[in-house]
Amino acid sequence: MQWVKVLGGLVGASALLGLGIILGRFAIPKGADAPAPGVSVSQDLDLEILETVMKQLDASKIRENLRELSREPHLASSPRDEALAQLLLHRWRDPESGLDAAEAPTYEVLLSFPSRERPNRVAVVGPTGTILFSCRQSEQNLTGEQGGPDVVPPYAAYAPPGTPQGLLVYANRGTEEDFMELQTQGIRLEGTIALTRYGGTGRGAKAVNAAKHGVAGVLVYTDPADINDGHSSASQTFPNSWRLPPSGVERGSYYEYFGDPLTPYLPANPSSFRLNPDTVPGFPPIPTQPIGFEDAKILLCQVNVSVHNRLELRNSSNVLGIIRGAVEPDRYVLYGNHRDSWVHGAVDPSSGTAVLLELSRVLGTLLKKGTWRPRRSIVFASWGAEEFGLIGSTEFTEEFFSKLQERTVAYINVDISVFANATLRAQGTPPVQSVIFSAAKQIPAPGLDGLSIYDNWIRYFNRSSTAYGLVPSLGSLGAGSDYAPFIHFLGISSMDIAYTYDRSKTSARIYPTYHTAFDTFGYVDKFVDPGFSSHQAVARTAGSVLLRLSDSLFLPLNVSDYGETLRNFLQAAQRDLGVLLEQHSISLGPLVTAVEKFEGAAAALGQHVSALQKDTPDPLQVRMLNDQLMLLERTFLNPRAFPEERYYSHVLWAPRTGSVATFPGLANACSRAMNTSLGSAAWAEVQRQLSILVVALEGAAATLRPVADL
Amino acid sequence: MQWVKVLGGLVGASALLGLGIILGRFAIPKGADAPAPGVSVSQDLDLEILETVMKQLDASKIRENLRELSREPHLASSPRDEALAQLLLHRWRDPESGLDAAEAPTYEVLLSFPSRERPNRVAVVGPTGTILFSCRQSEQNLTGEQGGPDVVPPYAAYAPPGTPQGLLVYANRGTEEDFMELQTQGIRLEGTIALTRYGGTGRGAKAVNAAKHGVAGVLVYTDPADINDGHSSASQTFPNSWRLPPSGVERGSYYEYFGDPLTPYLPANPSSFRLNPDTVPGFPPIPTQPIGFEDAKILLCQVNVSVHNRLELRNSSNVLGIIRGAVEPDRYVLYGNHRDSWVHGAVDPSSGTAVLLELSRVLGTLLKKGTWRPRRSIVFASWGAEEFGLIGSTEFTEEFFSKLQERTVAYINVDISVFANATLRAQGTPPVQSVIFSAAKQIPAPGLDGLSIYDNWIRYFNRSSTAYGLVPSLGSLGAGSDYAPFIHFLGISSMDIAYTYDRSKTSARIYPTYHTAFDTFGYVDKFVDPGFSSHQAVARTAGSVLLRLSDSLFLPLNVSDYGETLRNFLQAAQRDLGVLLEQHSISLGPLVTAVEKFEGAAAALGQHVSALQKDTPDPLQVRMLNDQLMLLERTFLNPRAFPEERYYSHVLWAPRTGSVATFPGLANACSRAMNTSLGSAAWAEVQRQLSILVVALEGAAATLRPVADL
Repeated sequence: MQWVKVLGGLVGASALLGLGIILGRFAIPKGADAPAPGVSVSQDLDLEILETVMKQLDASKIRENLRELSREPHLASSPRDEALAQLLLHRWRDPESGLDAAEAPTYEVLLSFPSRERPNRVAVVGPTGTILFSCRQSEQNLTGEQGGPDVVPPYAAYAPPGTPQGLLVYANRGTEEDFMELQTQGIRLEGTIALTRYGGTGRGAKAVNAAKHGVAGVLVYTDPADINDGHSSASQTFPNSWRLPPSGVERGSYYEYFGDPLTPYLPANPSSFRLNPDTVPGFPPIPTQPIGFEDAKILLCQVNVSVHNRLELRNSSNVLGIIRGAVEPDRYVLYGNHRDSWVHGAVDPSSGTAVLLELSRVLGTLLKKGTWRPRRSIVFASWGAEEFGLIGSTEFTEEFFSKLQERTVAYINVDISVFANATLRAQGTPPVQSVIFSAAKQIPAPGLDGLSIYDNWIRYFNRSSTAYGLVPSLGSLGAGSDYAPFIHFLGISSMDIAYTYDRSKTSARIYPTYHTAFDTFGYVDKFVDPGFSSHQAVARTAGSVLLRLSDSLFLPLNVSDYGETLRNFLQAAQRDLGVLLEQHSISLGPLVTAVEKFEGAAAALGQHVSALQKDTPDPLQVRMLNDQLMLLERTFLNPRAFPEERYYSHVLWAPRTGSVATFPGLANACSRAMNTSLGSAAWAEVQRQLSILVVALEGAAATLRPVADL
Repeated sequence: MQWVKVLGGLVGASALLGLGIILGRFAIPKGADAPAPGVSVSQDLDLEILETVMKQLDASKIRENLRELSREPHLASSPRDEALAQLLLHRWRDPESGLDAAEAPTYEVLLSFPSRERPNRVAVVGPTGTILFSCRQSEQNLTGEQGGPDVVPPYAAYAPPGTPQGLLVYANRGTEEDFMELQTQGIRLEGTIALTRYGGTGRGAKAVNAAKHGVAGVLVYTDPADINDGHSSASQTFPNSWRLPPSGVERGSYYEYFGDPLTPYLPANPSSFRLNPDTVPGFPPIPTQPIGFEDAKILLCQVNVSVHNRLELRNSSNVLGIIRGAVEPDRYVLYGNHRDSWVHGAVDPSSGTAVLLELSRVLGTLLKKGTWRPRRSIVFASWGAEEFGLIGSTEFTEEFFSKLQERTVAYINVDISVFANATLRAQGTPPVQSVIFSAAKQIPAPGLDGLSIYDNWIRYFNRSSTAYGLVPSLGSLGAGSDYAPFIHFLGISSMDIAYTYDRSKTSARIYPTYHTAFDTFGYVDKFVDPGFSSHQAVARTAGSVLLRLSDSLFLPLNVSDYGETLRNFLQAAQRDLGVLLEQHSISLGPLVTAVEKFEGAAAALGQHVSALQKDTPDPLQVRMLNDQLMLLERTFLNPRAFPEERYYSHVLWAPRTGSVATFPGLANACSRAMNTSLGSAAWAEVQRQLSILVVALEGAAATLRPVADL
């Protein structure tokens, strides 16, 4: 049989009969400067190494990282932000504990800042124009950290400049419904200043909704009921507790989309085509300013709002570091967080960066010692300008679209690592559920003698799974942090991991000093996580997930868990939309079939995996299987599904505005079609969305079936 | 070193030191019913097998195939078309010479047919309405094959019904310029019937251009100067020569786009969302009818055109067959052609299908004997309804978008295999040039004692390459056959292979009986390729290309050949657009840099390949490299680059309307901006197109660089 050919001439019969182990000297990438021990293409997760990493992740080192990271305010593109980029670069290039390579590429992006010379102002004015009262222009200097020149005054990034004046109208959360309600009550909105509170809708949406009713300016304050469980006095708030002080103001980006506003779908390189800033969509249409609750309760009558924000093109850095894979260097596990903060940003984002640095130190040390090198490449990222709209991460996905989409196994995001000390909380797409569970089961929950993170987690967040019974519930990914471009634009399985609240103890919308000058190291050290054991728990969980993804021979992505999501979405559609659709002669039958096909293909693939795992599989065969697992998430992307929703192409996780908890395209199209007549364009769109969905699910099932099936 | 772990416990030190050969029993796909001999993951192209295949490809068998395929008319979705689908299925399921599996899935697509009851009619009418002359309603029955009930009368598919009547105006080729010229001459076009000749622009475009000027109906004829080198008498034409008889009429689709008109971007499954046929874009706006030159020269004065075409939803089958890959079953080499014809379609498309069947017979026989199984999977396809607009292939790419994009190595199209006997001609994207050259160098040109196909080819089509000197020139791919959705929509490296004319002997626009009832077996057997040696030559060339792609350990796709295209496009831009761009402060600098980066990365990768080939490489390492080669073409896709151009997303091969032979997006945007003012939206579009291009080329270079580079 002449087709059994061998390239070299050195192969004896015994080697032919030998097991599938290859002394793969070609698998060691060039330029790997750490000792490169012999490599086995069957290299798998090493539980001893995993244990070593878990042990070495050190709470006190995370605390020291956080102290340094949050020592000074480090607003995106500020000198301190750049200095921290250098700090990361320095750590990742350390000869004892660094990575294989690290870089800090820069984008030129459009940010928005208040004017130093003409501070934004909110004042109550009398009938003759006399100023009766002025809101604070900065937070009270309670710990000596709120007074420096680098503390950016509270402002609404991307709100346009202007000095509207008018009667104050309280507009609750500034939703569309809130303004309709005011109109129903006969309240004239034209030319008024709307006072709104945070929550209920996006920041920018408040100004968009207000402007539709002729409102001239918007104020946004943080209500003690929403953030402090009702407490508001100085003695009950920071620095006496973790609660927000009366002068605290939540800053934030009021831009509607994400990414650099001038370069959608293009990296913000200096030569890239830029939109005209005067006509770019997504900025608030009217002057907007955030204030503290101390001031909010005083405001009366005629209010004058002076906003002097300016748009500026700035250079913002990402920092990237890599540990090259020993066997499959072209498969990337990404782990990232942003670096920029509004002020000191101890919780947001430095609690995540402190963990990131500890994890990279421990892995870097094992690497430099020659003890370990992962099977796949690990890429660490410190993103710039996230607070202005996930800008650094989005530009990165735009620049390396093809490479990332072809090769990325998963993206792990740890932004705020610790909101509070009660429990783990994780968001992600279904394929990552199993690997997070595996990790969480083997790590002790801090302070709960013997209870695992998993066992503790299930006490706080749980659901009944048809496949597994009671399990911790994984949240779904919105667009709240840097995972957004990875999941929505690239279709990469993503997750976000943190420690969080006991909801029976607080109803705070988020940790109280969020985006204020009170989010400092002392705040974390004293109130959020004294002892840093929750930080350590997150480091261990995320670190274990990372290692499992980078080192396991078989990718620990359980694609059949998507079946449960699809089934739930389908049932909601049948229950809440079935009759309506039937009335319009639209059948859910093809969708039912597609979901069934997906379930069948996923189950069969699962059995195939189990069978392979029992034996000593050929690494090429495992690679083919892993490609199916890795690329499943990509099959749900359709760049033509939602042409008006910038970046959102994932047909399962695009934003849902319709009230039925089902497939977003279907939910939204139905909600728009609901009150239109039979045969309307809106009903045609329902049918189009249904077809898009069916094709995506059928296509997904096709990629899970045996690869040589027709 | 505890990380050198082995899953099983059977591995001795000798196996660890053994060479990289794996007894990959898992690599043999389940369900492969042919004998599955032991498989080596290093399995490479076997030159003896290649030689065997070349020898066994039999001209007389191709002739027999063609006789059967073209025995009866087989218009898309007709009973005979379905019978041929069954014939293919039967052949591909043959126990002696069939494939591993074959299927014939069906789509429900919108086709257009003339009415049987009310034949289309073109008549000259007198002032009182008397018919002075009527054009033929069918071709003359010259060989006994033009008279049957299955010979569809000449018509313009998708032209709307209607009975316009008006003065006849000769409008040359019906281009925009032709109608402008008539207008300049003061000729009133409103309400006229335009007589146009084939060529110069697309079929449908003639009616679109005419309607803009108020023309009421369009006739299209074939001019003897364009098709018969001027000859037109009965004695000089078929059946006395290969030339078109006076009564011959070219049929064709007048639809502007491709794919099923009702389901753009969706497979035409019964449940798929469909557009309203009354408002679907892309159909000719006015009644249109093709006629023969015999009638064209008689037409005078007032003409009445009656078109009674009807749109019908029809079932149309693709036939698919697979030979499962032994080592990498998840990598597909696709080989296809359409099956449907306008009438008997001996040349178009049966000359290609006859070759396809012979190739699948020879490979199937080796497979069933257990002599051979390819390294990668081979998929054969017989597409339905191509003549109506590449419908079967397009629906297939829409249905299996993700799977095909992830796994397809290349698409080989052989539609008309023999236009004439002079020389090979090939079209394709640059990565396929080298594999076609390799094949063509080793196959003798028919009838040219000792001269290879390559040596003969270079005499007819050649160019001077900076890298190689004088080489045969590869044409670029338009949208003339089923490769279009593969290259433009999926970004899969594609090619089209045929034997063709000596242009010094004929200036015929295409072979004369194209799309007429005279394209019969006798025509091929007597005039096109007596002895079928050109058919055999194409079978060998395409077969060799197929085997090289399916069996070579290293994929024979030379990505660095793209560098030459980019450099040529760049030079044209610099030469012909540079000054204009500079005047508008647009720099080509970033594009120059991007091209240089591409060249550098491609050259380095080439060296890496050469180095690896000298040794006995690890198959996983080769797989990673092959993924880079396979996926390069995908990096040039941007679904947001040309939103108005349906399916076209390839930034290098989208349709170019601008006159400069450079990157199409840039050429078109410049040509539109040319006469607009500084700062216009058209000039912003030029900058946007330039950025899209730079990002695509930078992204392409990034995928060619070492996979673990940051």
